[in-house]
Amino acid sequence: MAIKVTVWNEYVHEVEEEAIGKLYPKGIHGCIAEFLEKAGMKAHTATLREPEHGLSEEVLNDTDVLIWWGHVAHQEVDDKIVEKVYARVLDGMGLIVLHSGHASKIFNKICGTNTGELKWREVGEKEILWVVDPSHPIVDGLPEKIIIPSEEMYGEYFGIPAPDELLFLSWFEGGEVCRSGFCYHREKGKVFYFRPGHESFGTFYIPEVQQVIINAVKWATPINFPELVRGMVDPIIDFTPSGDFTSVH
Amino acid sequence: MAIKVTVWNEYVHEVEEEAIGKLYPKGIHGCIAEFLEKAGMKAHTATLREPEHGLSEEVLNDTDVLIWWGHVAHQEVDDKIVEKVYARVLDGMGLIVLHSGHASKIFNKICGTNTGELKWREVGEKEILWVVDPSHPIVDGLPEKIIIPSEEMYGEYFGIPAPDELLFLSWFEGGEVCRSGFCYHREKGKVFYFRPGHESFGTFYIPEVQQVIINAVKWATPINFPELVRGMVDPIIDFTPSGDFTSVH
Amino acid sequence: MAIKVTVWNEYVHEVEEEAIGKLYPKGIHGCIAEFLEKAGMKAHTATLREPEHGLSEEVLNDTDVLIWWGHVAHQEVDDKIVEKVYARVLDGMGLIVLHSGHASKIFNKICGTNTGELKWREVGEKEILWVVDPSHPIVDGLPEKIIIPSEEMYGEYFGIPAPDELLFLSWFEGGEVCRSGFCYHREKGKVFYFRPGHESFGTFYIPEVQQVIINAVKWATPINFPELVRGMVDPIIDFTPSGDFTSVH
Amino acid sequence: MAIKVTVWNEYVHEVEEEAIGKLYPKGIHGCIAEFLEKAGMKAHTATLREPEHGLSEEVLNDTDVLIWWGHVAHQEVDDKIVEKVYARVLDGMGLIVLHSGHASKIFNKICGTNTGELKWREVGEKEILWVVDPSHPIVDGLPEKIIIPSEEMYGEYFGIPAPDELLFLSWFEGGEVCRSGFCYHREKGKVFYFRPGHESFGTFYIPEVQQVIINAVKWATPINFPELVRGMVDPIIDFTPSGDFTSVH
Repeated sequence: MAIKVTVWNEYVHEVEEEAIGKLYPKGIHGCIAEFLEKAGMKAHTATLREPEHGLSEEVLNDTDVLIWWGHVAHQEVDDKIVEKVYARVLDGMGLIVLHSGHASKIFNKICGTNTGELKWREVGEKEILWVVDPSHPIVDGLPEKIIIPSEEMYGEYFGIPAPDELLFLSWFEGGEVCRSGFCYHREKGKVFYFRPGHESFGTFYIPEVQQVIINAVKWATPINFPELVRGMVDPIIDFTPSGDFTSVH
Repeated sequence: MAIKVTVWNEYVHEVEEEAIGKLYPKGIHGCIAEFLEKAGMKAHTATLREPEHGLSEEVLNDTDVLIWWGHVAHQEVDDKIVEKVYARVLDGMGLIVLHSGHASKIFNKICGTNTGELKWREVGEKEILWVVDPSHPIVDGLPEKIIIPSEEMYGEYFGIPAPDELLFLSWFEGGEVCRSGFCYHREKGKVFYFRPGHESFGTFYIPEVQQVIINAVKWATPINFPELVRGMVDPIIDFTPSGDFTSVH
Repeated sequence: MAIKVTVWNEYVHEVEEEAIGKLYPKGIHGCIAEFLEKAGMKAHTATLREPEHGLSEEVLNDTDVLIWWGHVAHQEVDDKIVEKVYARVLDGMGLIVLHSGHASKIFNKICGTNTGELKWREVGEKEILWVVDPSHPIVDGLPEKIIIPSEEMYGEYFGIPAPDELLFLSWFEGGEVCRSGFCYHREKGKVFYFRPGHESFGTFYIPEVQQVIINAVKWATPINFPELVRGMVDPIIDFTPSGDFTSVH
Repeated sequence: MAIKVTVWNEYVHEVEEEAIGKLYPKGIHGCIAEFLEKAGMKAHTATLREPEHGLSEEVLNDTDVLIWWGHVAHQEVDDKIVEKVYARVLDGMGLIVLHSGHASKIFNKICGTNTGELKWREVGEKEILWVVDPSHPIVDGLPEKIIIPSEEMYGEYFGIPAPDELLFLSWFEGGEVCRSGFCYHREKGKVFYFRPGHESFGTFYIPEVQQVIINAVKWATPINFPELVRGMVDPIIDFTPSGDFTSVH
């Protein structure tokens, strides 16, 4: 059965800046949804300025993997919607955060660190992404490096928790490096961050970039989860409480 | 120079329940501060119902490591104070979270998961903590296992991110297990969670438990941090921007 | 295309001890191969006392995932065959090590620690395996715990490197715990260790145990690997060597 | 009490090549031992061509932390000595591997991967090491980056297990990156790898490089280890073996 992906995009640059609108006529979300559909997935889009940002409970409950691109309007995202997305991720919905989405409320909340903090430079410089885990399904079918002729630089120290799985490291012409592709497991959810994707460089048309995102969607897809029991429970093994205690409970 | 520790305790049980008050005449915070001072540290206490919960900016700025014990009043902790503690941790203040502090706002925020979620049972049962990283400074001077005759059970699945360093695993009489001592690095801060410490079992009088906490304070102490530059930066290496903007490749 | 699995088993107990021979009439290898085939895989078996231990170059080159069960004859495994298996794992062949295979030459070599070292007790006691990563494909379709009525106990401290992914923790009636299901990524290879499987308890007939192994084979299957360039290379970026040799700064 | 360090160096280049001999008149080992002594440690040296490579049982038993530099003569290191060093590391002796030591027998054995495999280029190019864990004791007192004007390039994919702690990432002028400072915990031992240190560039005279090594020695110093019990054990908790089994043991 086709993986159900919701591609969420701010969709502000494409609307407000003519050059970006021409570069991504269907918006970044439309561009991504298109190559996901070509890869056999069922891709749905949602944008910031739709009601509920396009992320109603039905949409979220019917989403296997959510992709998130945001940049200049993170603050406009309603905290209540962030809470719903957050709850769905911990409950198993995969999440792929792209580029400037590192500063989104949802990524910030999931990581618990100042994920918005890093070095940056937007002049257009070469980026080389190097694979550092050649066993991982997200690098399936890829070469050992991806060269992006022009991108916005992000540099360390990147305010993230140490990744559970580190997949890519990026080199930039100006001297910086960045952990640029990595995974977290958060309860039932699987989260992947991928750095490239500045709105003005056409990065989402690059075949290897598309392949990473396709692989990541497959990786992040929910499994049939163990049913988790929480709270006060009876023992599995019979025993006589062995100690004494001064308890009033 | 002596490590400056602030021991934060809810201090509700000891006040409201006679038996707990007798068990911890100086409060859990007083008990902990006492053995830290004996170990050569400078220990300061703070409790929930003091102004600003005893965590003013001066206190927080003058704290190397904060210890946190809370249980029935997590919701009473002011969100503004949580934000200040959170900012201090990411900026280098060590944090040690004990027992039911797993459900505190601060631990929840730092972890980004439902840390409050686990199995529990409060009948008094044996806990055996096993060391699973014999190289780690937090297990310095300890035996390979610590037997606690009576504790409250916490059982997996414990809603935490995979620890950066896993130090202890606990066995309980009723059949459950729990990851019971573990570390996270979050930006400049070091965080240690230690499971034992239910208010009614006198756990903080156990020498090995005290030793773990003393070792953890030393481990969590701030270093002289690298100064981190963030935001828009000039390149370190001169280069000519090689690509053109709004380019499709 | 069906995943090609080679199930390697020492096959000494089943031959030399009547009771074990009755429990596993086709050998542990035959039992495992059978349920793998039912799950749609192509399972091939190999045993210690075959020529080259059944692990010729053709077999190894045509194996996607190798499963290893050994116990009393680890020393009989030819070092040259160990080297070949090792090279194949680093080059992408998945490896699943079961139970007493923890003390095998191959697992020892891959881990680089004294993997043979742990506590054990063979009296028959209850084991409860708890899931500690509910997002992971290896726990797909499983409950939050697996109860095995009778197994051989393995207890910490287990001489292994900290797992890259920790999936299961085991509880034993006698008071011990064990990290009992975990993953390593080693270059192109994916390695999974699963603890249950003592020859005398019929563990490999338990449906949940079979499901873990089936899931693990799928997880460990090789991807289409990036082609890795090694050794002396030309730069990707033109530059003028900026420093002088034999320089003191 | 002063930390006891043994600095092991191949000491071939310094002897066989005049320029290297002038650069390091006391050998790389003498240079390193000198700054360690200035930092309050007790530094002892040993070289390849001494009897037992200077690593007798007394020396190894009296060493808290061993530093290893080798390059062109890894094969000359006696396997028996490698086994002794390996046993001491797992038993708690710290190990710091520098630069081309990545291809040493000891590092290869501990990692269990083809640690000798990486890209390299020896023309003299700028290296920038970036801190990616600002909380870690090994980066105590350091700036966020270290610029080395001339070094030998090492580039990914570096055949190592994913580090337990990743501290530095390196940028090279030619386009490559490398995980260049990282930690492993292996049983009781703590292992740190640090990339810079090619024999012809005077790297060990750089103050920040010296500081990293001094910090690493402190980090790798043995603790008072838990005494680990292994092998067949009696239960801690009395129980009646609950299941039946077809065992002949």
